[in-house]
Amino acid sequence: MEETKGVVKHLLLAKFKDDVTPEKIEELIKDYANLVNLIPPMKAFHWGTDVSAENLHQGFTHVFESTFESTEGVAEYVAHPAHVEFANRFLSAVEKLVVIDYKPIS
Amino acid sequence: MEETKGVVKHLLLAKFKDDVTPEKIEELIKDYANLVNLIPPMKAFHWGTDVSAENLHQGFTHVFESTFESTEGVAEYVAHPAHVEFANRFLSAVEKLVVIDYKPIS
Repeated sequence: MEETKGVVKHLLLAKFKDDVTPEKIEELIKDYANLVNLIPPMKAFHWGTDVSAENLHQGFTHVFESTFESTEGVAEYVAHPAHVEFANRFLSAVEKLVVIDYKPIS
Repeated sequence: MEETKGVVKHLLLAKFKDDVTPEKIEELIKDYANLVNLIPPMKAFHWGTDVSAENLHQGFTHVFESTFESTEGVAEYVAHPAHVEFANRFLSAVEKLVVIDYKPIS
């Protein structure tokens, strides 16, 4: 098995609060996507909504996947003022979330 | 924002039970990886362990990411005898899991 050289995937699964409007969710997603333009170690961003049929999603509705070159890059992102400002707004809108980082091995 | 054409990511986050040995976990991961050789619609497989520092991983320790070309491909995978046999063994070894599918948009 081989580790993909220098890649750390930063995954966030979220369920938004019931009173958060679709417009507000859309705005948060746009702001999340825009972090890639503001925070150099953040190399890529993808997101999507749950399309699973197994009913094991535990209520999570959104997946956000960011790509970094190292765990140091993730730390720089987490501490970046643009992330801190965004994270405060994002966290106040979610009912639950999981954030997990991993180095993909194939 | 653009949807990556014809790609569905099938994500599984897991925490193994405390009494499951590292050897057993390694065996399960090898068997999971081998499904890509047995189930045609499964196009790629990556996995990794949590390296996050934010302490928002909610106890999950492993990420497994499989790639399909469609939600129909995921359904074929879920119903495939090789997956059913594996899933029964895997599920009996995990304390908790989330399974979520999404079509990555960038």
